[in-house]
Amino acid sequence: MTFSTRIAVRGYELDTQGHLHGAIYQDYGEHARWEILREAGAPQEKLLASGVGPVMLEINIRYLAELGAGDEVDVTCEFTWGAGKTFRIDQQIVRADGVLAAEMRVISGLMDLALRKLVANPAEKFAEIVENPSVLGL
Amino acid sequence: MTFSTRIAVRGYELDTQGHLHGAIYQDYGEHARWEILREAGAPQEKLLASGVGPVMLEINIRYLAELGAGDEVDVTCEFTWGAGKTFRIDQQIVRADGVLAAEMRVISGLMDLALRKLVANPAEKFAEIVENPSVLGL
Amino acid sequence: MTFSTRIAVRGYELDTQGHLHGAIYQDYGEHARWEILREAGAPQEKLLASGVGPVMLEINIRYLAELGAGDEVDVTCEFTWGAGKTFRIDQQIVRADGVLAAEMRVISGLMDLALRKLVANPAEKFAEIVENPSVLGL
Amino acid sequence: MTFSTRIAVRGYELDTQGHLHGAIYQDYGEHARWEILREAGAPQEKLLASGVGPVMLEINIRYLAELGAGDEVDVTCEFTWGAGKTFRIDQQIVRADGVLAAEMRVISGLMDLALRKLVANPAEKFAEIVENPSVLGL
Repeated sequence: MTFSTRIAVRGYELDTQGHLHGAIYQDYGEHARWEILREAGAPQEKLLASGVGPVMLEINIRYLAELGAGDEVDVTCEFTWGAGKTFRIDQQIVRADGVLAAEMRVISGLMDLALRKLVANPAEKFAEIVENPSVLGL
Repeated sequence: MTFSTRIAVRGYELDTQGHLHGAIYQDYGEHARWEILREAGAPQEKLLASGVGPVMLEINIRYLAELGAGDEVDVTCEFTWGAGKTFRIDQQIVRADGVLAAEMRVISGLMDLALRKLVANPAEKFAEIVENPSVLGL
Repeated sequence: MTFSTRIAVRGYELDTQGHLHGAIYQDYGEHARWEILREAGAPQEKLLASGVGPVMLEINIRYLAELGAGDEVDVTCEFTWGAGKTFRIDQQIVRADGVLAAEMRVISGLMDLALRKLVANPAEKFAEIVENPSVLGL
Repeated sequence: MTFSTRIAVRGYELDTQGHLHGAIYQDYGEHARWEILREAGAPQEKLLASGVGPVMLEINIRYLAELGAGDEVDVTCEFTWGAGKTFRIDQQIVRADGVLAAEMRVISGLMDLALRKLVANPAEKFAEIVENPSVLGL
């Protein structure tokens, strides 16, 4: 089952045009990514303490519907792992009434916070740190 | 009963020191103020359509406890009305385990969005617009 | 000559990993888009008063270098117009020392703020509103 | 001479009412505080590496004028040191045309990032870390 977290749009997140500010969609995706890591047993502080942190290399967002104050959305998160330094995360932002508000695809890596370089095998490193690798599809 | 709304701290709201960024406490307070207005029957878009908007004239925040990723808080909101152009809102941010994380006091007014001036009697104006004035203590 | 605006990274924009928060790169791009519109003679308030606002339909960001407190960047902005409802904006974030920190491509439209629908011919509509269409490549 | 840093309001910082979002005034103050620390020779990353970080205990902001897209402001910063664990920072946000847009007063401390407790003598600790204590009035 795809991981998902519920978010309520907050009034101060709207812009001059009366709808959710574009970059906040990206933040909603990031929130869901931190939440799936927590669910897997690797909350942010544990990752930082392990000396690594997830970083975005590329993001693509397709905006499909406006969101306004009072809306609630579910943000999904699905990892695809490969052999190299990067992995892919596919996410959807779905309004509570079922309307797909945005889709995003993130190409990510795991950065060594001391060296400021990507670790060679992020899947292996995550598997070491988390408690429930299956949550991440590992 | 004091109005209150539940908020989950989001991972991207933390700063370099690993705790909730200071200005976000202020945003949490603003979120609760929009929510109490919605509860009273005056959501943001209705207020804007009425040509008025609440503005802060002064805010005082006392920071009492750090908040981190995974924390949930209840944010309260209590209005005190007077005779003049301003009114006061007292708010608390209480962690789900009962710890008081912050207290804030806002002196606010209701701005005429065309004239960019405070309306003379905000309590009266709110009473006209909202459906359940008692939610706001009116 | 490509339009460009200078931005100084602000200390509160860094995240728990000590570098510029990912979604802020997107905001830097948006700032440059508002600035080029101002340069063309269509500041945000004039656009809103005209009943239209630019909206993102899709964004792609490639993150190429970390940014930290004290860094200054130049954010460029280049429009490509077509025949339909959408237009493309290509942007670069270049650190003052010449390092390319990010590239983004935005597919955008111009929304009728009352109808909440894209206008049929954004290039034409912009040409009506702005004073110096050549700044936007029109 | 009072320390001051210049900030340009960014288009994405405006809210549904078309003016600078309230909590961003607080961020502008924080930016100036990081900048005066950099000027004194203690940029954020050096402080973090020293195992300490400035934290707010209380903030008071008086909002005196709206700010809009295109405005530039100077944000000042003046420290007052005492004998205890806390110190005071007085700040003004002054629009380029001389209009005072906001005043804020911050009661701050210096937190030991490992112990999550305030250090006993922040003035002494700052004097050890910075290169030009006089910038901070030390």
